[in-house]
Amino acid sequence: MLDALAHVGRDPATGGYVRDAWSGADLELRSWFADEAARRGLDLTEDRNGNLWAWWGDPSAEPGVVTGSHLDSVRQGGAYDGPLGVVSAFAALDLLRERGFRPGRALGVACFTDEEGARFGVPCVGSRLLTGALTPERALRLTDDRGDTLADVLTRAGRDPRALGPDPETLARVGTFVELHVEQGKGLVDLDRPVGVGLSIRPHGRWRFDLRGRADHAGTTRLADRDDPMLLLARLVLAAREAAARHEVVATVGKVLVTPNNANAVPGHVAAWLDARGPGEESVRALVRELTARLAEEETPRGRVEVREESWTPLVEFGRELRERVAGAAGEAPVLATGAGHDAGILAAAGVPAAMLFVRNPTGVSHSPEEHAEEADCRAGVIALADVLEELCR
Amino acid sequence: MLDALAHVGRDPATGGYVRDAWSGADLELRSWFADEAARRGLDLTEDRNGNLWAWWGDPSAEPGVVTGSHLDSVRQGGAYDGPLGVVSAFAALDLLRERGFRPGRALGVACFTDEEGARFGVPCVGSRLLTGALTPERALRLTDDRGDTLADVLTRAGRDPRALGPDPETLARVGTFVELHVEQGKGLVDLDRPVGVGLSIRPHGRWRFDLRGRADHAGTTRLADRDDPMLLLARLVLAAREAAARHEVVATVGKVLVTPNNANAVPGHVAAWLDARGPGEESVRALVRELTARLAEEETPRGRVEVREESWTPLVEFGRELRERVAGAAGEAPVLATGAGHDAGILAAAGVPAAMLFVRNPTGVSHSPEEHAEEADCRAGVIALADVLEELCR
Repeated sequence: MLDALAHVGRDPATGGYVRDAWSGADLELRSWFADEAARRGLDLTEDRNGNLWAWWGDPSAEPGVVTGSHLDSVRQGGAYDGPLGVVSAFAALDLLRERGFRPGRALGVACFTDEEGARFGVPCVGSRLLTGALTPERALRLTDDRGDTLADVLTRAGRDPRALGPDPETLARVGTFVELHVEQGKGLVDLDRPVGVGLSIRPHGRWRFDLRGRADHAGTTRLADRDDPMLLLARLVLAAREAAARHEVVATVGKVLVTPNNANAVPGHVAAWLDARGPGEESVRALVRELTARLAEEETPRGRVEVREESWTPLVEFGRELRERVAGAAGEAPVLATGAGHDAGILAAAGVPAAMLFVRNPTGVSHSPEEHAEEADCRAGVIALADVLEELCR
Repeated sequence: MLDALAHVGRDPATGGYVRDAWSGADLELRSWFADEAARRGLDLTEDRNGNLWAWWGDPSAEPGVVTGSHLDSVRQGGAYDGPLGVVSAFAALDLLRERGFRPGRALGVACFTDEEGARFGVPCVGSRLLTGALTPERALRLTDDRGDTLADVLTRAGRDPRALGPDPETLARVGTFVELHVEQGKGLVDLDRPVGVGLSIRPHGRWRFDLRGRADHAGTTRLADRDDPMLLLARLVLAAREAAARHEVVATVGKVLVTPNNANAVPGHVAAWLDARGPGEESVRALVRELTARLAEEETPRGRVEVREESWTPLVEFGRELRERVAGAAGEAPVLATGAGHDAGILAAAGVPAAMLFVRNPTGVSHSPEEHAEEADCRAGVIALADVLEELCR
């Protein structure tokens, strides 16, 4: 099934994927999801926030067991982050049917909208709206790099932006959620195991730094007369690395937009996004406080710095009881913590029993065209997922 | 006349102009130029490199006197850089006709193509192709940020890319060239004079730094395992500033493109453009050598750095005899050196007698929406230009 998606949103120059939420590629992936659901006779619904649900059985009487992930991608990402979980969900369901299994509870396959936040800057928009962790007012005002709001983009995609918001009815149908995902580190390589179970998701957040100066001519403006925000960016990048090492967290400036971005002009504005994560909430918070204070020292009358928190996800620990049940069903799979955010973490934080299965990544590389998983490991993931669903649907 | 252009390519959000060569805005400006030429009964020709020439009289017997500038803009630039010289050229011609002046030589108004290099990275493409300072092979391979080559863009604009190249016949018609331009510094403010004359154009160049690392997940990749080219960018920016101050030159990193530019991914590639200029060629060259060596120290197996010279313009001194004649005709205008490149510099380097007139800029700010010139100073510029043309066409 992954092969059927291999062409969608693929950049032929790099081999990376560009699958922004609500883009043409995303709409094609959503339509693929609907086709796969129909082929299996599942009942498809799109909830008010654009998340897709394909049900085997009726979850309205008793909450069901749901598995799935997302189909959108970071820009220039790999083929596995997201789609592996959705494809494995359908494959596990097929395997259960081959085994002749009749679930005692409804079984659902979910596809969450805009998990990566590649377009609007906030990750897990679909699951956060569903649980109320993100307000519709804030979501609708989010803008992409072209200045279009999420409201504009939804309208263009034929969706009603006024429908967005917490959806307790949809959420109540999810008795348990299990997300399978390619591992984004080398934990399973080190353990020499194909499949693992999630212990926790480390606290993480995203901050936008607006560094302002004055646009000017690169040839005629004396150094002393400049307010060049590119210098502030350089100090931010180096200070973030130094402070991250000291606090034993990770910090990344991965996205930068320069205005006007002319080779022969001092820039007037640089926007930079800081992603920071760590084992403890306080160390991540301390890093951001330090960087904010460090840049405030560099301010001049025109060289101003504004810092805005775009998202914050506290530490999420997956429930122990479910985790042990999942690990047991998956052949005593080892347990791993991760620094990556997932929809399963959003649901867990909202009180939904949730668990994760990870599939070995031989290089640990992710969010890159080099991301990879061996076919045998993917197959082991499907079998583990089917075993877990069988256990949970009993 | 400037008012008639005020809407073309204007970004309503910033008030800045985006007038890339061969864009819709540029084609509109070119058509405005043709209309102004027709209204005055001038003979319009577009040369094989896309430069526009409007002639009063026939320059094929005896080379004429030409004035003009360019209509394209840096991105988010001001209203004066370029257009003031073209508009003043037409206005000076009108003034000469009002005075009843009959030129003893042909008088031409020129509009050079792609002076800023905002789209393809190389400035003064039109005049460089005309004089042979840029080969058509290299020009046609230049790409814009969307990956379109100049050849593609010319074809789409209905031009024949195979026509590009040195054009001695067109160049031979230019006996003398005078370019009027808004000043891009505060020299005339300090001297309390509305109009000045160009002494020289400082040596300047543009270098592209390709900083390569490995794209990776921002949450799960340990600091020690990263090859993050954003760190190389930060070191380049700070080292450029430090070395520029030491060598008494100016250096600017004004354009940066990050790939993939995801908030939650370590970038795989950062392209950064360095613009460097100074009073002496050797100090600019030394700066670039030092930065190249400094970054080579930071290289890792995957963290590679490539530096490519995109353009280099040696020191141009405008001829003394012409300069003194122009300064005299312009009411003993003061003489100024500039760090900004101009088509007049390209022609001068090719042996065409060339001179420049500058109009006072009250803030010195240029390549910015804040760029400005007072109306009275613009009028003084037109009168000075008319006086100079009258003197040269005698």
